[in-house]
Amino acid sequence: MAVNSPLPVSADLKPVAGIELGYAEAGVRKANRKDVLVMKLAPGATIAGVFTLNRFCAAPVQVCKTHLAQASDAAPIRALVINTGNANAGTGEEGLARANATCAELANLLGVKPEQVLPFSTGVILEPLPVDRIKAGLPAAIANLKTDNWFAAAESIMTTDTQPKAASRTLTIAGKKVVMTGISKGAGMIKPNMATMLGYLAFDAKVPQTLLDQLVKDAADQSFNCITIDGDTSTNDSFMLIATGAGELEITSADSAEYKELAAAVSALSQNLAHQIVRDGEGATKFIEVTVEDGSSVEECRKIAYSIGHSPLVKTAFFASDPNLGRILAAIGYAGVDDLDVSKLNLYLDDVWVAKNGGRNPDYKEEDGQRVMKKSEIVVRVKLARGTARASIWTCDLSHEYVTINADYRS
Amino acid sequence: MAVNSPLPVSADLKPVAGIELGYAEAGVRKANRKDVLVMKLAPGATIAGVFTLNRFCAAPVQVCKTHLAQASDAAPIRALVINTGNANAGTGEEGLARANATCAELANLLGVKPEQVLPFSTGVILEPLPVDRIKAGLPAAIANLKTDNWFAAAESIMTTDTQPKAASRTLTIAGKKVVMTGISKGAGMIKPNMATMLGYLAFDAKVPQTLLDQLVKDAADQSFNCITIDGDTSTNDSFMLIATGAGELEITSADSAEYKELAAAVSALSQNLAHQIVRDGEGATKFIEVTVEDGSSVEECRKIAYSIGHSPLVKTAFFASDPNLGRILAAIGYAGVDDLDVSKLNLYLDDVWVAKNGGRNPDYKEEDGQRVMKKSEIVVRVKLARGTARASIWTCDLSHEYVTINADYRS
Repeated sequence: MAVNSPLPVSADLKPVAGIELGYAEAGVRKANRKDVLVMKLAPGATIAGVFTLNRFCAAPVQVCKTHLAQASDAAPIRALVINTGNANAGTGEEGLARANATCAELANLLGVKPEQVLPFSTGVILEPLPVDRIKAGLPAAIANLKTDNWFAAAESIMTTDTQPKAASRTLTIAGKKVVMTGISKGAGMIKPNMATMLGYLAFDAKVPQTLLDQLVKDAADQSFNCITIDGDTSTNDSFMLIATGAGELEITSADSAEYKELAAAVSALSQNLAHQIVRDGEGATKFIEVTVEDGSSVEECRKIAYSIGHSPLVKTAFFASDPNLGRILAAIGYAGVDDLDVSKLNLYLDDVWVAKNGGRNPDYKEEDGQRVMKKSEIVVRVKLARGTARASIWTCDLSHEYVTINADYRS
Repeated sequence: MAVNSPLPVSADLKPVAGIELGYAEAGVRKANRKDVLVMKLAPGATIAGVFTLNRFCAAPVQVCKTHLAQASDAAPIRALVINTGNANAGTGEEGLARANATCAELANLLGVKPEQVLPFSTGVILEPLPVDRIKAGLPAAIANLKTDNWFAAAESIMTTDTQPKAASRTLTIAGKKVVMTGISKGAGMIKPNMATMLGYLAFDAKVPQTLLDQLVKDAADQSFNCITIDGDTSTNDSFMLIATGAGELEITSADSAEYKELAAAVSALSQNLAHQIVRDGEGATKFIEVTVEDGSSVEECRKIAYSIGHSPLVKTAFFASDPNLGRILAAIGYAGVDDLDVSKLNLYLDDVWVAKNGGRNPDYKEEDGQRVMKKSEIVVRVKLARGTARASIWTCDLSHEYVTINADYRS
């Protein structure tokens, strides 16, 4: 299931000069599906990432952080390897050894050092990584490395996703062309905290490492860090931003107009990829934006927005198209904003004013709420009358299909 | 659906001297069901309560707090009135007026003052309370006031509950007999914060107000404040403890052995009532205890226990009897205990040692996990190796039936 399927993803994703992609069917968990992806970066590329804050962060995430910290101009990151079917999380020392073994094998095949490879895994937690099958699949992945393999790459990182997630954009900044393409995956265990599992976005402008580090954080905060499907923060969340430097634009300062334009484009494309994840949320039939306005801080707006977005009662009401909107008030009330004066609170569902000054709006009619609830895209807007801060998050409903998918995931 | 139904609830609930109960079919939301309950207290009774911390606390909760604060020896609380079908929450000033009107009507019929009545409501939020129908039902409720109406009282406060929840106990403290009976309701919007919606426990010992205030807090903290079904804290949670004083025992000091014995019995019976709520959780097929041990504080143990108990992925795995136990590690990891050293963490499922020092226990066998997951009562035990604190919470699984119930609740 997916909201408004099929998604506007097609095969006309733009190649980004300086990056090649190759996949394999390695049989990590199931046969006959793309489950290993290699991304090869040309010399001159910079890369930055943000990772899950889950304390059980997976072995590949730990290896990624180490390799990124060790990377230098003399020995930059040159390749990424991603497998589905197994998260290599909750696997202790042996998990680290297997993530490192994967890097070593790919490094050997590409003629680089193991520290120049970043590993990523997604799938079941607490099971040993079948590292031999992954290693055996690498030659095939390398054999089909191509710059125009983005769609196949998006397919090869899917798990419970029903559709590949990808987006592409070409823009001109200061008269110079920039090509930007990204892919992401994820449909359950989605409440990213720093990034989601998994997103990769590359463009061909040249950006110094320190600026790229900032850029990836800003983009994640405005996109992947604003979505939730089930409130479960994954052990493997990773969002990587790659500047190949093989195109026309070169960024030298964070204060430049060029940087700001590039950052806005990266955020917009990241948001697009993040929304694709919510639209393909496990069992999702509706795409819901929750915006909280007039708060005293962004943090309290986010707290309330997430409280609404995580409530199983709110989510099932959306699934049923039932304007049982008191459940939204209850979720606002227990969000943990202790000094909230509910008598000043207003609630809107799209253009319908539902709650006025903390109570039912006398002009609110059930049929108006019903009309909005039947839509597949809905905006919930809460006005707090406490200040000028605002925040939006994006989420989906909770359906029978979610239970079915997650009751059957491993079988 | 209910775990291990039918519950061990029968009609042999002990009357508590000093308290009479009467119900009516007032048609608050639906016809032909008991939906109004009156509890009448004899002179000499003391009463104390704990209420929801939800900022959208319902009108009746606000009125209860006011009336409890005003109560005195000269004008003590003499009656409670409870309706189902409508929560009278998110209803603003008009909601307060209607809660007060209900109190005034009952007070008039009983010959007491409105401030001597406590009102309670449970049901749909954000809809006007049909106060005229409730008032019209009160004479019938008063006409059937009886001391042995506890089972009918438990039935009359049900909403999505599939079974009435009640328990009774007779004990002897310092040679004096104490009779104790309680009822509760709730199956969804259950993650009590101070108390659950709704619980009433009465006994016939005499207890001064200050001690009763402490007793109700302690009992709630060890029972209703340790359960969760869907993480949604209700707007109407209330737990009331009544000491009728009509029996043999009189408590005069919190330091007495008698007080400690009574407090232990109240906590045990409260826990029993709280467990009944979880066992009848909307769609529940399994009753799950999550115990976190060896923590550095009770608070962090509770954080981790609730993180596990709220995870939709963990709950659907229990529903499916699928030992996809990595999901439990993920939930521990994102619980917000930032300095948690996962390499010292151990996880058990009943007697099965699943994760050892943060990774899969080499001796763990999938079939052992499977065996436990198939049971209808399961203990998840997490050992943190950080200290000596511990906490337990009780929860249930997440099934198709939960979605069905909450998608259909108002229809």
